[in-house]
Amino acid sequence: MTRLKDLDLDKYIRAIPDFPKAGILFRDITPLLANSIAFRETIMRMADPFRGQNIDALVAAEARGFIFAAPLALELNASFIPVRKPGKLPYERHSFSYDLEYGQDTLEIHKDAVSKGQNVLIIDDLLATGGTVEACCKLVESCGATVAGCAFCIELIGLAGRERLSQYPMHSVLTY
Amino acid sequence: MTRLKDLDLDKYIRAIPDFPKAGILFRDITPLLANSIAFRETIMRMADPFRGQNIDALVAAEARGFIFAAPLALELNASFIPVRKPGKLPYERHSFSYDLEYGQDTLEIHKDAVSKGQNVLIIDDLLATGGTVEACCKLVESCGATVAGCAFCIELIGLAGRERLSQYPMHSVLTY
Repeated sequence: MTRLKDLDLDKYIRAIPDFPKAGILFRDITPLLANSIAFRETIMRMADPFRGQNIDALVAAEARGFIFAAPLALELNASFIPVRKPGKLPYERHSFSYDLEYGQDTLEIHKDAVSKGQNVLIIDDLLATGGTVEACCKLVESCGATVAGCAFCIELIGLAGRERLSQYPMHSVLTY
Repeated sequence: MTRLKDLDLDKYIRAIPDFPKAGILFRDITPLLANSIAFRETIMRMADPFRGQNIDALVAAEARGFIFAAPLALELNASFIPVRKPGKLPYERHSFSYDLEYGQDTLEIHKDAVSKGQNVLIIDDLLATGGTVEACCKLVESCGATVAGCAFCIELIGLAGRERLSQYPMHSVLTY
């Protein structure tokens, strides 16, 4: 695959003020996803630090995490493992609940999705405060597997997700 | 890419009785997603009928549609366009509401996602009654683009989705 190491991926991220609420500058990835050259190069850059590390599986929470984790799993010849909201996965599950700004959220993983001794990457489109990513790490560990690292298209560095998850190797393609 | 045209993908689909409710035999795709050889061959088979057809964009509704549409978009060098539930897409949107067994559902697409004259594929993991897929077709057409076809990993042939969408070319890798 031809690499485009000089491609400026930032120009495919659209900044939208006041979404989802006043004062928030939302980073819209849809222009990047709409350009297959930029999207492919993003996937390659997310994969780069983890090549040759014997990654067995990639875990991502619905919905946007799936967009990056599915092609990354094929790029790294690894399993794609979905983490979903309650009621969506049909087989035996582990659950993990975590606090949001208002209320709680719960995510689930199939108990047989990953197993003891496996090396797992957590994938998401964006790292903010790290709540969803931490939930994915806990779910992977509840299956007995090891979190080998976390990879993101975008990291919002002001929200301290990296500090919250400091025990794991972290990799972001774009930072804001 | 090496093709595995004799690979029996059916053996990677797990049948789970009485999910999400009594009497339903659920087709669980997670074993297929966990095997990167089978997942890659599925993506190749979904793409096969549409190669050389100048497909500009692939549209998929969250969440499971994303899993197939993202690698397919890279395989076909086309745009990946997400269709999402209300409140998720940050830019100007078209909306489409449709009836469920109980109540209604609404899906949205960015107005600038696809444009007049573009050839668009609709992608989902599974074709059942076709309600979600029909909504995606309507959203694409509301942008002025053309639905060139629909591709699925699985088609449940007893639920008449194909008949409902008979004006569009349809392609399924596995049927039950």
